Amino acid sequence: MTPRIDGLQYANWSEKIFRQMRAGGLDGVHVTITYHETFRETVANIARWNRWFEAHPDLIFQGFTADDLTLARSTHRTAIFFGAQNPSCIEDDIGLVEVLHRLGLRFLQLTYNNQSLLATGCYEAEDTGLTRMGREVVAEMNRVGLVVDMSHSAERSTLQAVEHSTRPIAVSHANPFDWHPARRNKSERVIAALAESGGMLGFSLYPHHLKGGGACTLAEFCTMIARVAEKHGSHFLGIGSDLCQDQPDSVVEWMRTGRWTKAVDFGEGSKEAAGFPPMPDWFNDNRDLAGIGTGLRAVGFSEAESAAILGGNWARFFATSFGAAP
Amino acid sequence: MTPRIDGLQYANWSEKIFRQMRAGGLDGVHVTITYHETFRETVANIARWNRWFEAHPDLIFQGFTADDLTLARSTHRTAIFFGAQNPSCIEDDIGLVEVLHRLGLRFLQLTYNNQSLLATGCYEAEDTGLTRMGREVVAEMNRVGLVVDMSHSAERSTLQAVEHSTRPIAVSHANPFDWHPARRNKSERVIAALAESGGMLGFSLYPHHLKGGGACTLAEFCTMIARVAEKHGSHFLGIGSDLCQDQPDSVVEWMRTGRWTKAVDFGEGSKEAAGFPPMPDWFNDNRDLAGIGTGLRAVGFSEAESAAILGGNWARFFATSFGAAP
Repeated sequence: MTPRIDGLQYANWSEKIFRQMRAGGLDGVHVTITYHETFRETVANIARWNRWFEAHPDLIFQGFTADDLTLARSTHRTAIFFGAQNPSCIEDDIGLVEVLHRLGLRFLQLTYNNQSLLATGCYEAEDTGLTRMGREVVAEMNRVGLVVDMSHSAERSTLQAVEHSTRPIAVSHANPFDWHPARRNKSERVIAALAESGGMLGFSLYPHHLKGGGACTLAEFCTMIARVAEKHGSHFLGIGSDLCQDQPDSVVEWMRTGRWTKAVDFGEGSKEAAGFPPMPDWFNDNRDLAGIGTGLRAVGFSEAESAAILGGNWARFFATSFGAAP
Repeated sequence: MTPRIDGLQYANWSEKIFRQMRAGGLDGVHVTITYHETFRETVANIARWNRWFEAHPDLIFQGFTADDLTLARSTHRTAIFFGAQNPSCIEDDIGLVEVLHRLGLRFLQLTYNNQSLLATGCYEAEDTGLTRMGREVVAEMNRVGLVVDMSHSAERSTLQAVEHSTRPIAVSHANPFDWHPARRNKSERVIAALAESGGMLGFSLYPHHLKGGGACTLAEFCTMIARVAEKHGSHFLGIGSDLCQDQPDSVVEWMRTGRWTKAVDFGEGSKEAAGFPPMPDWFNDNRDLAGIGTGLRAVGFSEAESAAILGGNWARFFATSFGAAP
């Protein structure tokens, strides 16, 4: 059977959510373990995950390779793959790329909205592309098998990452800009570059990425996917739900403002809607992933295509991305 | 063939030394990667090792399990196993035990001469045994498979570690106190406890641990080993040479004084002999390990016993010590 995978979540993890992963038949989930944290703070987050792995060995375990998806399926558990949404965790030290890979980090965003040491984020006025260090770090990530994730990066930086990386890259959670013009959504040019280079695009359920926000229907969401598949093929498509279940607004604030401003930054929200926006009623937790499969079938995807989008494509990508280059 | 293993080295690593490991037929070496360093500084040391592994893939690679000894033998390389001589690398955070184990740490000394958060070092006036945190950390080390090493610990702490640990422990580098009464050498009681509990004793070539210092002969050294084997058996004996090749005196000073004093501590040396003492002329680098085998045969050990002391016993210990408890 095709593995079922969510390409991005950052929930307020709990036994309840781990049980929902099982109820939803999730074999693998890419979870964000760090935003603006330093290396040492990121390691503290890893230690927290280690305690969850120790406390719930019947529900979850840490995933390191694509083989862990098979292990997950055969043992009825969910493999948890670590990712970082900002490169602050490697500080200014390229040596931390391999160290964090050894600790299980499998995705690293070169930026989170702002300019980083590596590239430009999607909220900056000017996009200067990959920095000198950015080019070195991408090469090192290619060497050890850590996926370059450009979900929160600006256009030129993203295209340069596709170009400079010797291995396919991911946009783990975003939708087409042409469908809904959020700053975080991606242009046709970026989507085409992902499709052609063997990369991955994970469709996001974060309401600010959806046309109509939380009112977006399952049919509209799945029709958007169908339009992308018609133009570019479905081989590079997955889900990156951006599920932020049970997070207090203080955590949303940390994501958006870290320590980089003393003011409040509302990210994709606004002063009037500062908190986490209401989710579509057809996607609230891990148990709702199966419903997207039904939606995909309803807009014309075959069973095989639907299964590939719900995890098969991510599984293939994991298999070629998570280890030393051949 | 029995693997050849050195149970403790802290050299000023270089391609020259890695080539000498090969010339000496070393399949595995336990190397010290940190003394008084914090966690972050220890990770910087790991990054330095990663660069050596990348630069010299034909000579060395990082060892994680006893199977890597077989891999080393079949690929004509030396597996490097990480160890810490002081627990400063886990700071005050038990979560760092599993994190450092994931990064490959396989030995952790509970103390280095002084009182630590975990136990009492062999240079303290009073030995209060394992601390509250010490007992917790030993249990965590037992869980993940990180060897408790009491080489630099005081007597009561060492005996309590043997007692409290659910898995056998090591004294990776020391000699019998009765043979040469250095503070770092171990009493008959400690040696008996290691022998009976399935632990390991690695004999040290550090001149301050030798009767007569650098003038100690190979025959005297091997006769000392024979006396221990007569009393306690040879099943728990290995070599932990404490090879400090090519280290400048500034590094010896770091080992002894770290940041814990503004004065100079001479450790096992003295004001008159502050530097690194001259080595016995029959042991200067990794190529000289084979000669100890000849010496062991000369004092009556069988070929099989000699091979076990030169690595077979460590290999068996590695196999049962370097992973999650069954």
